[in-house]
Amino acid sequence: MKVSIVGVTGYSGLELIRYLRQHPKVEIVSIHSHSMHKKSISDINPHLKNIISLPLEEFNAEKIMEGSDLVFFATPSGISKELVQPFVTAEFPIIDLSGDFRLTSGGTYERWYGKTSAPLDLVKKFEYGLAECRKNPKAIWIANPGCYATATELTFAPLLENKLIQLDSMIIDGKSGLSGAGKGLSQTTHFTETNENMSVYKLNQHQHIPEIIQQFKVWAPEIEAIQFSTSLIPVTRGIFLTSYVKASQSISTEQLIDVFKKYYQGKKFIRIQPENQFPELKQVVGSNYCDIGVTYNQTTNIISLVTVIDNLGKGAAGQAVQNLNIMAGFPEELGLNAVPLYP
Amino acid sequence: MKVSIVGVTGYSGLELIRYLRQHPKVEIVSIHSHSMHKKSISDINPHLKNIISLPLEEFNAEKIMEGSDLVFFATPSGISKELVQPFVTAEFPIIDLSGDFRLTSGGTYERWYGKTSAPLDLVKKFEYGLAECRKNPKAIWIANPGCYATATELTFAPLLENKLIQLDSMIIDGKSGLSGAGKGLSQTTHFTETNENMSVYKLNQHQHIPEIIQQFKVWAPEIEAIQFSTSLIPVTRGIFLTSYVKASQSISTEQLIDVFKKYYQGKKFIRIQPENQFPELKQVVGSNYCDIGVTYNQTTNIISLVTVIDNLGKGAAGQAVQNLNIMAGFPEELGLNAVPLYP
Amino acid sequence: MKVSIVGVTGYSGLELIRYLRQHPKVEIVSIHSHSMHKKSISDINPHLKNIISLPLEEFNAEKIMEGSDLVFFATPSGISKELVQPFVTAEFPIIDLSGDFRLTSGGTYERWYGKTSAPLDLVKKFEYGLAECRKNPKAIWIANPGCYATATELTFAPLLENKLIQLDSMIIDGKSGLSGAGKGLSQTTHFTETNENMSVYKLNQHQHIPEIIQQFKVWAPEIEAIQFSTSLIPVTRGIFLTSYVKASQSISTEQLIDVFKKYYQGKKFIRIQPENQFPELKQVVGSNYCDIGVTYNQTTNIISLVTVIDNLGKGAAGQAVQNLNIMAGFPEELGLNAVPLYP
Amino acid sequence: MKVSIVGVTGYSGLELIRYLRQHPKVEIVSIHSHSMHKKSISDINPHLKNIISLPLEEFNAEKIMEGSDLVFFATPSGISKELVQPFVTAEFPIIDLSGDFRLTSGGTYERWYGKTSAPLDLVKKFEYGLAECRKNPKAIWIANPGCYATATELTFAPLLENKLIQLDSMIIDGKSGLSGAGKGLSQTTHFTETNENMSVYKLNQHQHIPEIIQQFKVWAPEIEAIQFSTSLIPVTRGIFLTSYVKASQSISTEQLIDVFKKYYQGKKFIRIQPENQFPELKQVVGSNYCDIGVTYNQTTNIISLVTVIDNLGKGAAGQAVQNLNIMAGFPEELGLNAVPLYP
Repeated sequence: MKVSIVGVTGYSGLELIRYLRQHPKVEIVSIHSHSMHKKSISDINPHLKNIISLPLEEFNAEKIMEGSDLVFFATPSGISKELVQPFVTAEFPIIDLSGDFRLTSGGTYERWYGKTSAPLDLVKKFEYGLAECRKNPKAIWIANPGCYATATELTFAPLLENKLIQLDSMIIDGKSGLSGAGKGLSQTTHFTETNENMSVYKLNQHQHIPEIIQQFKVWAPEIEAIQFSTSLIPVTRGIFLTSYVKASQSISTEQLIDVFKKYYQGKKFIRIQPENQFPELKQVVGSNYCDIGVTYNQTTNIISLVTVIDNLGKGAAGQAVQNLNIMAGFPEELGLNAVPLYP
Repeated sequence: MKVSIVGVTGYSGLELIRYLRQHPKVEIVSIHSHSMHKKSISDINPHLKNIISLPLEEFNAEKIMEGSDLVFFATPSGISKELVQPFVTAEFPIIDLSGDFRLTSGGTYERWYGKTSAPLDLVKKFEYGLAECRKNPKAIWIANPGCYATATELTFAPLLENKLIQLDSMIIDGKSGLSGAGKGLSQTTHFTETNENMSVYKLNQHQHIPEIIQQFKVWAPEIEAIQFSTSLIPVTRGIFLTSYVKASQSISTEQLIDVFKKYYQGKKFIRIQPENQFPELKQVVGSNYCDIGVTYNQTTNIISLVTVIDNLGKGAAGQAVQNLNIMAGFPEELGLNAVPLYP
Repeated sequence: MKVSIVGVTGYSGLELIRYLRQHPKVEIVSIHSHSMHKKSISDINPHLKNIISLPLEEFNAEKIMEGSDLVFFATPSGISKELVQPFVTAEFPIIDLSGDFRLTSGGTYERWYGKTSAPLDLVKKFEYGLAECRKNPKAIWIANPGCYATATELTFAPLLENKLIQLDSMIIDGKSGLSGAGKGLSQTTHFTETNENMSVYKLNQHQHIPEIIQQFKVWAPEIEAIQFSTSLIPVTRGIFLTSYVKASQSISTEQLIDVFKKYYQGKKFIRIQPENQFPELKQVVGSNYCDIGVTYNQTTNIISLVTVIDNLGKGAAGQAVQNLNIMAGFPEELGLNAVPLYP
Repeated sequence: MKVSIVGVTGYSGLELIRYLRQHPKVEIVSIHSHSMHKKSISDINPHLKNIISLPLEEFNAEKIMEGSDLVFFATPSGISKELVQPFVTAEFPIIDLSGDFRLTSGGTYERWYGKTSAPLDLVKKFEYGLAECRKNPKAIWIANPGCYATATELTFAPLLENKLIQLDSMIIDGKSGLSGAGKGLSQTTHFTETNENMSVYKLNQHQHIPEIIQQFKVWAPEIEAIQFSTSLIPVTRGIFLTSYVKASQSISTEQLIDVFKKYYQGKKFIRIQPENQFPELKQVVGSNYCDIGVTYNQTTNIISLVTVIDNLGKGAAGQAVQNLNIMAGFPEELGLNAVPLYP
């Protein structure tokens, strides 16, 4: 299978290269960047020397469709929505890692991203690519979920589908490493400002909130709101999510673990932790795993959950490759068997 | 004023030296350690060379009372309860930084610390030293609060005393730097295990929980439980607390900020952030400040609060010096005017 | 090919698992630890869950030889020298990652490791496994080089073999991440002591010095001494080596780069940087690459070199797998094609 | 004494505030920034809230001279040379922290800073402010040394003045924390690029090289060149310098330590380490100390030295305050007695 990557110089694009280079059935045939064409990717990214030496090319839909079987967009929000039309017209497979094709209800993209949405009928052609919960495995246009959204939805899916929680009590306290802020330069990503620091950056305002609520409504249509905070911690990779929610019925930690194990049975990338054990961020870095620990506090009737993913792996490129595998009919794990980089 | 420090080689003891060396009215006359006596403190801690060269002495209550006017205990839990009796008998001033004299109800210390408590009538002689909320400024025996407890109580005091929240809805998500785990060696404090990592370490089990509830009951006796989690983040110093609680009445962010400003009027070390601004951890490191940001989410009826302190400053040695100032009748800020170490 | 790993719970052992799990021709059939047998490796190391679930077994030479084709020792120094005899007697292949079979001259191991050496005739049966400079590809007993030794020898090999430098002027300033200090607990590896810090730990005393000199003498027998310092920097993985040496003849940077490129022609894991470019540590983390930058300063007649490796990759497990490939006649890169984990 | 600070929003300017706020004889009366005037400094820097609330003013030489007794320039290179003339004309005291008045020989500033120099006769009016080696304590115009230059010159002064080393053999391997790169945004200071990384950034090209050689020539006029490299390590503050130089005569470590102790006798901020002990970076962070360790290797005839300073303290603002103390006739330590922030 031959693929092209558009927007390859950002962190998600580079991570796509990392995963795809290990995929036994996929070959990267062209890579595209609006800013630095002509140069070789390994000149700009010396870690890729002797590994991949394709030149950075200008975007050209026709050439991509001629040479490839699928195109990844790893562009910032607002780009792919301007570029996908020729691929859709030609029924050519797309996996989009940006937020451009995730929000299906009118005005939502505008409000949270501050940009004009793609036409909603075009958006609706895209399948939301939460890999463990995909509806239509044959979909050829995939809106790959956001990193926070992936972690949050995988955390609450078993609770919502099994109707175990009070819907107005969900509190999600998310923390992200700095690669989540992208390669752009700002005070927020300056080492001296960030190192030895922690800061809230979007309280009740993160653009993944509507994405999460939209997906939650699939499982529990009466949901109206969630409490969602996001902080930066001084690490490069990873999302660490602590969630709190009131149980709607009598339950125990043991029962909760059973619910999660059953829900994710056969899903190799979701690893439910044993009782009294919570995942550490580092145990998933560099991989496509999502590890979840859960406990119930009888005194407060609160279920606490700890969820960890690599924001560039399961939260972006890893899940995108998993979606490619689903689309192509490959085993879901193909090319994704990298052991997390511990220590 | 002459003071002695018992347990000077731990992080809190060293931080006491750091603050007291800048205090214009205090002289450190003796320092004590059970493990390394005879050596000079600056041989073991080269950062103190040319600054303080007192020898480490064995503990000797008589000699301390002869030479000093006050004794600090910066010992691990379980030590000071065995050592204070002669000082109490002699009506000699004590500031204890450990957990030994904080919990006044029977069986609580045993359950949370796993050790025998000091006799409860002795414990009750100690005033709980939450400096901004002290009851008896003349107290000469002070139980200096825990670091998490300090941050949590200063966060909720205005809300509880003004009856603004639903008491069964308090969720506190605390994160601490590694100095909070002390100088002891364990996998938890190994650089390679902790760096680029984040982990929950005590979910519903932190020994500051009963201390917090005890103090909360002073303000709202009907409180029964709180949801309290603690995680480690890869920084050296600092506590970063995110709290969530449901409002019990119609309120706005603006009103909440007013409540906090009024409650802490004249309290120089509590800095309430302006609307839409939340404190970063780094803005208090190296100081005795406690910075609090608050916001109200109308959609979920949840008040979110972000609180930061230096666990060794306001959370330990800084507050201890503040308590000394109160006891001695000095201005509360004396010796505590260090500017936070930013960047 | 079936392999066993002895000493699997240390960082090098875990890294062997990480590489071997991606090797298409190798299967790990048993793993051994003296301390924690019976448990599953993934119970102790949650990052391995769903990846490998072998039990930790007691060491048993007979059983290993029955079930496997090769044994790795990833044990601390002083262990493998007590365990290898039955394998040698049986002509069974060994790759030893410790320092036990590297030093061939009498008294050297004793002086630098402070322990009794293995018998020298046994030591001499082992081939020194500097993969790019191997003498006997058919050797079945390999002493895998130390991490600092690997970086230093790969840096100086082209200069020594081409007689380009003054032999009494070699200065090597090495820096290592904390995983190089192993999993053991000490003040040196305590996060709070190490974070935001840098410290020299072995000046003129590192046990890799005799290993380096021994190898240097192969290329230039008249060498007597090197100046070699090692510091700790607050990162998890990686060795960053800065070297200085006086040129023995008129030379230019361009010529030096040519010398290096020619010397390492066809050696995929050695990546010589273009002129005026020096490798960053991060561009090799998680991989088996060794990247080298070189420049000549006409004013001082000094050649400066910057060399980076992952101490657990090229400096330990990666090179060990490369040596397995050489021994087995596989392509050298097999199982080692992981892209460095950037960012 | 009343002072003004021009360029107060950079890291050196903020650090000046930190030190001066603790100085018992100095009051900051006005602060100036070209970019953000009108705002209060504590609005932009929340760590300064309740500490200093002066407004940021436009630069105005007349007003400064009316209200103050001395002006600090903490501006980037190229600014103060355009602004100082009215102060010099009025014989008004200046301490300049930039590189604008350090290089006294024609063409040097141009070559290394890439900008037009201030007129050389103006430059020569400034005394080079290496505080422990000041020539004219009455000078009122001070060129405060660069951070790397301070560390390097304090390291070599005793060796050069005592003629103990071979002058063509000096090799200095410097490492700096990221605050040394300033507040400006670049790939180099992006957390994700810098964290878990180390990189050489100026090999033989750092602008402090001519400053160091100029000062070295004061002590040993025949010096021609030094080998000088600078790397970035992932810490916020601090310079860690490893130096290597050949002895010119028979010497021992003990003798070297004596030479250093004698040379710096009475200089409280220079702390010579005992034999076999080398300073760690952290033992000076937040302070004005410069700690030096030295050892001699008989085998290679090389003297190795390890030197640590806080680049913002002794390397900038701390030394500037020390120079103010010298100028004003205060004790050198006044306002500089902060204990290093350990841990």
